[in-house]
Amino acid sequence: MDKLSPEMKACLDNCLSCYSTCLSMAMNHCLEMGGEHTEPAHFKLMMACAEICRTSAHFMLIGTPHHKHTCRECAEICEQCAQDCGRVGDMQECVDACRRCAESCREMAA
Amino acid sequence: MDKLSPEMKACLDNCLSCYSTCLSMAMNHCLEMGGEHTEPAHFKLMMACAEICRTSAHFMLIGTPHHKHTCRECAEICEQCAQDCGRVGDMQECVDACRRCAESCREMAA
Amino acid sequence: MDKLSPEMKACLDNCLSCYSTCLSMAMNHCLEMGGEHTEPAHFKLMMACAEICRTSAHFMLIGTPHHKHTCRECAEICEQCAQDCGRVGDMQECVDACRRCAESCREMAA
Amino acid sequence: MDKLSPEMKACLDNCLSCYSTCLSMAMNHCLEMGGEHTEPAHFKLMMACAEICRTSAHFMLIGTPHHKHTCRECAEICEQCAQDCGRVGDMQECVDACRRCAESCREMAA
Repeated sequence: MDKLSPEMKACLDNCLSCYSTCLSMAMNHCLEMGGEHTEPAHFKLMMACAEICRTSAHFMLIGTPHHKHTCRECAEICEQCAQDCGRVGDMQECVDACRRCAESCREMAA
Repeated sequence: MDKLSPEMKACLDNCLSCYSTCLSMAMNHCLEMGGEHTEPAHFKLMMACAEICRTSAHFMLIGTPHHKHTCRECAEICEQCAQDCGRVGDMQECVDACRRCAESCREMAA
Repeated sequence: MDKLSPEMKACLDNCLSCYSTCLSMAMNHCLEMGGEHTEPAHFKLMMACAEICRTSAHFMLIGTPHHKHTCRECAEICEQCAQDCGRVGDMQECVDACRRCAESCREMAA
Repeated sequence: MDKLSPEMKACLDNCLSCYSTCLSMAMNHCLEMGGEHTEPAHFKLMMACAEICRTSAHFMLIGTPHHKHTCRECAEICEQCAQDCGRVGDMQECVDACRRCAESCREMAA
């Protein structure tokens, strides 16, 4: 991975970290809590967020210029997910991971 | 999956079929042929195409409205992949799968 | 994909079909129903089933002999998922997809 | 992810790191080098290694006990991939990532 620029390496790390946090919290926090945490719109957003982060990481690793488009979509979904996790509450770890990922994906998409 | 509209069900099938064809042909045709078939730009495009098809299918199965954005990107990459496979030659199965997938993804993205 | 044997092609189809059914029903049926449907052990099993089916399909498409091991694990998880979906009830589509996938994965694993 | 044990957190990191290294080196080193680097058996092994690492990470994040089985398979493929990368040469980064991942996956599988 030494061919990745420092910015892309940071974005890759943030994507894999956000993927891990969203999937893990959905499975091990939201399912335990129930209520708003398993409300379909919120839970699906977390699963979509995990998947687009995983995909954007994959595109940067492939080294395809299309990573700009997956990163743009990733930034948008992460931003929405951060807001929704903030609304539901008790999910600060997820809010933080989504914010960091959104920020570095926006730079990649530019 | 009986909650999917007929159009989305068809798009899902085309995405999974294009994912399967691109990955299988890259691994079992391009690697055997070598030459232009393993030229980085072509091979990476096929891997990116396989991945975005897999992701768009995933988004439609989740049932998130963001599938419109992944389908738009999927249509674009499939179209490029179809053209590049046509240029390299000997990849008609891939050209056809990419064309069909691009067409139904464009409808989803609208 | 014309290099796949008829048995492997059938197994691939069953894996992609089971992946689609498990993911779609978890997201669009279980989350709506709540109760036992979102009980962590059941929901996680469905997500694990979707993922191992996706992975086994990927291994068959790559054309690696390790597909025998992913198919063996896939058969085991699908069997468990079929039983658990039967217990929870109201999930016959999932039971059927898991049974079909388990059966063809067992043949691949042999 | 604060519910993961330190051992599992380390294994997760090693899986994501090995996934990243295998995929990135296949796409950005092997395709450039050609020759033995794109010989089907070697290249497919790298792709299978990337995928099983990705899947094992996913299983640990889901928090399913089946991660023991995916980790066992992951350890086996990583070990083979390390050996084959050593044979081909010029791939020390990949050898190291595969060895580290194999070691921690073996502990998880126990």
